[in-house]
Parts: sequence; C-alpha cells; structure tokens
Amino acid sequence: MARTHADLRIVLDRTPGTPLHVQLAGALRAMMRAGALPAGERLPSSRVFAADLGVSRTVVTEAYQQLYAEGWLEGRHGSGTYVAEIGPHPATDGLATGAGLGAGGKKEGPIGRGEARRRGLVDLRPGGSWVGDYDVAAWKRAWRAAGEHGPGDDPDPRGLPVLRALLCEHLRRARGVVAGPENVVVTRGTGNGLDLVAALLATGRRAGVEDPGYARARGIFAARGAETVPCPVDDDGIVVDGLPDDLAVLYTTPAHQYPLGGRLPIARRERLLEWARRTGAFIVEDDYDAEFRYDVAPLPALYGLDPARVILLGTLSKTLSPDPGIGWIVAAPETADRIAALRGALVDRTSVPVQHAMATLLERGDLDRHLRRMRLEYARRRALVVEILGDRVTGDTAGLHVMVPVARERLGPLAEAALARGVLVDDTRRHTLGEHDNHGLVLGYATATVQDLRRGCAVLAALLADGHG
Amino acid sequence: MARTHADLRIVLDRTPGTPLHVQLAGALRAMMRAGALPAGERLPSSRVFAADLGVSRTVVTEAYQQLYAEGWLEGRHGSGTYVAEIGPHPATDGLATGAGLGAGGKKEGPIGRGEARRRGLVDLRPGGSWVGDYDVAAWKRAWRAAGEHGPGDDPDPRGLPVLRALLCEHLRRARGVVAGPENVVVTRGTGNGLDLVAALLATGRRAGVEDPGYARARGIFAARGAETVPCPVDDDGIVVDGLPDDLAVLYTTPAHQYPLGGRLPIARRERLLEWARRTGAFIVEDDYDAEFRYDVAPLPALYGLDPARVILLGTLSKTLSPDPGIGWIVAAPETADRIAALRGALVDRTSVPVQHAMATLLERGDLDRHLRRMRLEYARRRALVVEILGDRVTGDTAGLHVMVPVARERLGPLAEAALARGVLVDDTRRHTLGEHDNHGLVLGYATATVQDLRRGCAVLAALLADGHG
Repeated sequence: MARTHADLRIVLDRTPGTPLHVQLAGALRAMMRAGALPAGERLPSSRVFAADLGVSRTVVTEAYQQLYAEGWLEGRHGSGTYVAEIGPHPATDGLATGAGLGAGGKKEGPIGRGEARRRGLVDLRPGGSWVGDYDVAAWKRAWRAAGEHGPGDDPDPRGLPVLRALLCEHLRRARGVVAGPENVVVTRGTGNGLDLVAALLATGRRAGVEDPGYARARGIFAARGAETVPCPVDDDGIVVDGLPDDLAVLYTTPAHQYPLGGRLPIARRERLLEWARRTGAFIVEDDYDAEFRYDVAPLPALYGLDPARVILLGTLSKTLSPDPGIGWIVAAPETADRIAALRGALVDRTSVPVQHAMATLLERGDLDRHLRRMRLEYARRRALVVEILGDRVTGDTAGLHVMVPVARERLGPLAEAALARGVLVDDTRRHTLGEHDNHGLVLGYATATVQDLRRGCAVLAALLADGHG
Repeated sequence: MARTHADLRIVLDRTPGTPLHVQLAGALRAMMRAGALPAGERLPSSRVFAADLGVSRTVVTEAYQQLYAEGWLEGRHGSGTYVAEIGPHPATDGLATGAGLGAGGKKEGPIGRGEARRRGLVDLRPGGSWVGDYDVAAWKRAWRAAGEHGPGDDPDPRGLPVLRALLCEHLRRARGVVAGPENVVVTRGTGNGLDLVAALLATGRRAGVEDPGYARARGIFAARGAETVPCPVDDDGIVVDGLPDDLAVLYTTPAHQYPLGGRLPIARRERLLEWARRTGAFIVEDDYDAEFRYDVAPLPALYGLDPARVILLGTLSKTLSPDPGIGWIVAAPETADRIAALRGALVDRTSVPVQHAMATLLERGDLDRHLRRMRLEYARRRALVVEILGDRVTGDTAGLHVMVPVARERLGPLAEAALARGVLVDDTRRHTLGEHDNHGLVLGYATATVQDLRRGCAVLAALLADGHG
C-alpha cells in the first residue's frame, strides 16, 4: 500500500508577500507535477508536517484543503491524506488547445436535450453537467435548511452576506481569488452576470467577444443594445495584438477558451491588462469551468492581476447543476455597488431560499466533496474520449468538453452522418461570427452516460476514419 | 350564531356559454354584495345545495372554492361554509382611485428597507408583502419537497409542466383566467416577465407606460433599448383616447392602477383592446396585486378579453413573498413560444427547486389558505389607514397601498416633516414622467407592523391637519 512520505524537504519563504499556506500548496503542487510525489503517496499528518516545517497546523490544513479542492489530494483528514490519481496525463500537456461552454448554458438547437433523451439519441453537445451522481443526503439537507428561513420582504440585490462570505472562501481555495464580500454579487449564473455587465457597461457601445466564442454571449450583449465586435483567438486564447481601442468591454474565457480550449499564458494576460488599462475597457472573465483541470493546476483567475479592470463571472452550473441558478460576479467594490443598484432598478435578483441552500452546501463542505468527485468523473470521461478519438482531440486537459478540428465545409455532412447514427454533436459554426480557420466538433462529455459517451465517440471515430473529417 | 340560509333562490342559466359553477359563484357573489347574504350567514352544504339546484355536487364545491379563494367565504367544507366578514366597506365603494405596486419590486431610495428597520423608522413605502404570518409547517414542507427532486441538467425555459398546470388552476380560481400550460411561462416575477416582453417586442421601438405609473417599468424598457412614452391615466386608469398609434407595446395595470388605484371600467377595457387591434400594439397587463380586493369582486383579467393581444404578468411577490422569485407570463401560445426561445438564448431561467417548492404550496392548497388569511390581514390594515386618514384616502378598496392626494409642491416638505417624525413615505413624484395633476402620497400598508402602521398614519394625519397637505 501507500507509504508515508515522512520527509518532505520544503523550504518556505517567510517574507510577508505570500501567505505560508499558499507557498506550501505551491511547493507540494510543484512536487506532484514533477513526479516527486507520485499518486498514492501518503502525506504526513497536518500535526507532524506542521511541526517539521515549524509552522502552525492551520497552514498545513489550509494548504491541504486547497490541494483537495484542486483535486491533487484525496482521502480524509484523520484517516490519511494521499496524492490523487489525477486521471489522464496525455502527452498533450503543455499544448494549448481544447474546449468548454460558458454561462451554464443549455444547448439550443433543433433538438432539445429532453427530446434527444426521449428519442434515445446520444447527446454529445456541450453544456450542462453530470447530475447522475450527487450526494442525496447533502442535497436534501440543503433544501431542508432553506425552509428553516422564513420568507422575507426585502431581498438584497447583492445576495445574502453569509453566502457572499462563503463564496469568497470557495474562490480563494478553488481559484486563488482574494476577494471580500464587498466584491461579490450573487447572481443566478454566468448568463445573469453577463447580462448585468452588458446593461451597465455596453448599451450603445462596442463589446468585444471571442471568435470563435460562446454564442450566447453575443446574444446577451446584443439584447442590451451593444454592438458586438468579433475578436480573434488562437490556440492560446484571445489574441491581444490588434484588439480595437474603442471597446467598452471585452468578454473572454482565459482559463479555458470556449470552444478552442486554450489557457491564456501569463505573458499574454499581462499584455491584455495593459491594453485594458490603456484603452479604459473592462475585461469580463468568464471562469465557467475553471474548477475542472486534470493535469497542471489552473492558473489563478485573471481578476487577481487587476481587480479594478477585470469583472469575474462564475457559476455553479458546471460544478453542480444549472437547476438551482447560482453564480457570482467578483469586481471592484464600486463596480459591485453599481451592479447592485442596477439590479434594484431592474428588479433582478437571486432567489433567497436557493442562496440559503447553496450556503449550506458550501458551509458543510458538500460542494468541495462534490467537486472532487466530479473532477475524477470528468477526468475519466475525458480520458475515455481521448482513448477513442486519439490525437484528433485538441484543447487543454480541462473542463467538460473537447475540440476535434475538422474543416468547416466538412462539419455539416459530418454532423448529419453522426445524427443518422444516433449521435448529436455541436460544432464551431454556431460559435463563429467572422472568418477564421479554427473549425471543428465541440464535444461535451458531461451529460451523457459513460456507456453513451463511449458509443458516441466510437461512431465519430469511425466516421472520421472514413474520411468524414 | 349563524343560521343556515337553506332557501337560496338561484336560477342558473343552462346555456353552454358559461360553466355552471361560474354562474353559481356569480349569483352568490351578487347576493353577498347586495347584502342578501350577510356576513356570518351559513350556506347550505354542497350536497343539499346541489340537490336543491339540480346540479352535480362538483358544481357547488367549485363555486364555493372560487368564492373562498376570493375571500367571500370562510370556514371549512364539512364543518360549514360561512359568508366572510369582508372587512372595511367604506362609502368610497364605486369611486375609482387608490393605489398598488407592480413587479414585486423592492423600494429603492436613499434609505433601504433593512436600514429603515435598523433605524427604527416606520416604513410606509409601498412594495413587499406582510411576511410576519406564514404557515411555517407548509413552508418547510415545500422546501423539503423541493429537495426530493435531484438536480437536473436541462431546465425548461417555460418552467416545470406541473407548475404551469397548477398555475392555470390558480389563475382560473383567483383571476377568472382560462389558460392552459401552453400559454404559461414561469418567470421569477413581474420584473423578469416585463424584461422578457421588452426584449422581445420593444427594443428600438416605442413602449407606452402609464403616467403616473410604476417607475421600474420605465427603467426595464429603457434598459432594453426601448423609447418609453408616457400615457396619461385618470381615476379610472389608463386614458384610451389619445393613445399614440405607433406603440409596439403598452404597459398597464388595469386591475388596480399603480399608483392612483383605479380599476379600468369594462367599456374602457373594450376601447383599449380596439385600439390595440387597430394599431397592432401588444398590451402588457401587470396584474400585480389583483388577488387583493376587499369589497366588490375583482374584474376578470383583461387577458381573457383578447388572449392574442394581451400578455398577462403575475407574481407571487405580493401574495406570498418576493424572496422565492416566482411569477408568470400568460400569453398566446405563439407568444409564449417566442418568449421561451428568447429565454433560452439569453440563458434566463427560473430556479427549478423553487418551482418544485411553489408547486407543493399550490398543490396542497397552502397558497390559497395564505391568500385568504392575507386578504383579511390587508383588509384590516386598509381599514385602519382609512380610519385614521379618513376621506383623504382615495383609490379602490384593494391591493396593498392607498393614495392620499397632495399637491406636488407640498410633497417634498410633507415627506421631510414625516421623516423628521420617524415616518418614511413614498409619493407620486418618483412615478411621474411628464406633467399631470394626480399627485399625492403613496402609502403601503403591507410591510410595517400594525402598531407601526397606526403610529405612522397618526403622524401623517396630524401633519395633514396642520396644513402640510
């Protein structure tokens, strides 16, 4: 079985710049990434480790929690902490292409998801999340807890203070975001958050969107009277050079570009922020599936690099389910104030009992546990897709979808041939505004059963091998 | 005690135009209104009554249920059915002024409701509902029931079919609306419903709003890029003569004009619909507080007169609480289809667990029971306001607010004097776009305690007697 790694040689920098638990988590992450701490290895208990390092036990437990949340560790405090099997670790590591869907969006098309199910189709379109495995007791407990709070007459457009505080903790652990309740507005999801940003900043102005990019984002901007401007992306994400100077706001998915799947490199992040500061544009960071990363640790959110210029949008739609309708905006306090005032004026709000239920899930650690389970689930599913479709799959080892490059003119016949064999797919055409060469299938692996996923991928592999790609 | 009215001479018209239970409810309502069936009178049992009338027992129980829902009857089937004490029956009956707040809206102003509470102010601003008396067991049961349904991955933008069906029953009973689930979209409240209508119909076009009228409606239209056009109202409601011919949509509150409080007379309703048919405009009927009427029965919703041209907006914010966030749009099936498609595109939806909870409240009759209790509560509160402020109060005996006419130039000093004495009031200035003479205080009696309501009204009565009005 696992041996305990009793002697971890870690030196923590004790200058006050970075909290000790962040340093410790970073050091452990680096060792796991380098293979110095292989899967199955048992880490020292927090008590022993804290004594060895000469730090307080809290430093160790916080570092462990962060690494649990990111999926690096598994097991339980008390019974032992182990380096997790991180799932597939394909040779594509470091390559920056791939895929993900924004906004907790439900796929819309000729065939609805429910209808697809009734017709027995294998639905590989992105969107949604795997809801077949949730903690029934925790879910029931959360709604029971919601009922303990009587109905109020004055819902706060910012959201419940307790939930805002819990979301800050969650964001710190899962996304390296340092924010206080004054930075947070509890929304119903990414769509709601983007709509509020559009209404506040983009009406009658120009809003940049990624091309290819999340189609719904364009529609949400347009419905607020903004002119959307397509901005090119490549395998690394948004292309900063050539961004127009007259954008009021730029919508982007730096953690996992949708749909190509790249993760915006640090240098480009800095150039993007320089552009924003120079032109006065706000950057909307859609962090839709950033909790799901199966190889390297996710980069911290762009928001942390310039909280004054970046507005972060997050959602529980991917981590749990789109049904409850909970998301968040993280922004500078004055921006959060303006958004809250706008919500008041538009009578836009987040259901209060749902906020209570979600607070319970966060408070009790149920959401973290679910996230860890889902990370393993999705890592396995992604590995299955890669196993069947092989090198055709591009995009980072992250999120809930992959991209399979296919020439634009072949996409229509390929989708039709797949449908004739009972498999529904999505592709880049729907996510395209202008001309570009980044076309392909966008395959979601979250909502189908594993059996259907296997079947669907086999059908696509056969079609692609027959020259359909 | 009550004697049983064993001999009700009622003749039902047996032509197929109107269902028998509707005829029977109408006949009983007319007798109660005329005093032929005074408060406290006991009605025959449904078995006896059905035999006397020569109709099925269902006809009688359905008629009784309708009158229960409207607050005309009280008691329980089995133990006896009684004519209810309807509360105040002031001499203003028939006069058509008064007040009500749309959209389940939370009041916004320099002082929030929570802050007002903390500062010990008496808050007589309209908005919200009385949440101090709800059925704790029913509320808890509803959220427990919500937790019995696991999270889904594909929320329906129209809402849960079971809830749509239950809302149709509720609307038939409470508002005389005949609609099927295909007519209904479950929203989060009036604000959400109006926003969807605005996005669908009004972007880049002209939208009529009542003046004075619900301020938030203007803001919601404007945020969708519509030009709002003020349309005059008088004591009866919207003035049809002179409505422009180029409106895409007209927002109106025919059941209880906000804030003046008139109920649109039948003849004017018909002229309004003629105008809409002639010009092609859609009418948005905000039915925000129509369940609350304490004297005559409410007129059936305008929607019933022309389901193709009228879009009905309803909300649970007034009947229960704004916290859960449930409302509805009732419209022609093709309009409902277009709204549902738009919601899909904008990723706009209603929390699914909340829909399950609300379905439970409707299914078990909890909401009807709450409505009946609240009708008595608000009738008593309105009577208290009229008792203290006397003839100054105008508006129909309905809803959750009254209007007290005051010349525009006196409103500022009056509100300041009231605040200096610890009383927060709202007035028509905030609800005014152009020039008109219908100014006054708009006083909500739903959210304060009865003690505070009494205190606040006494302060206002003293100020008005001192010539502040």
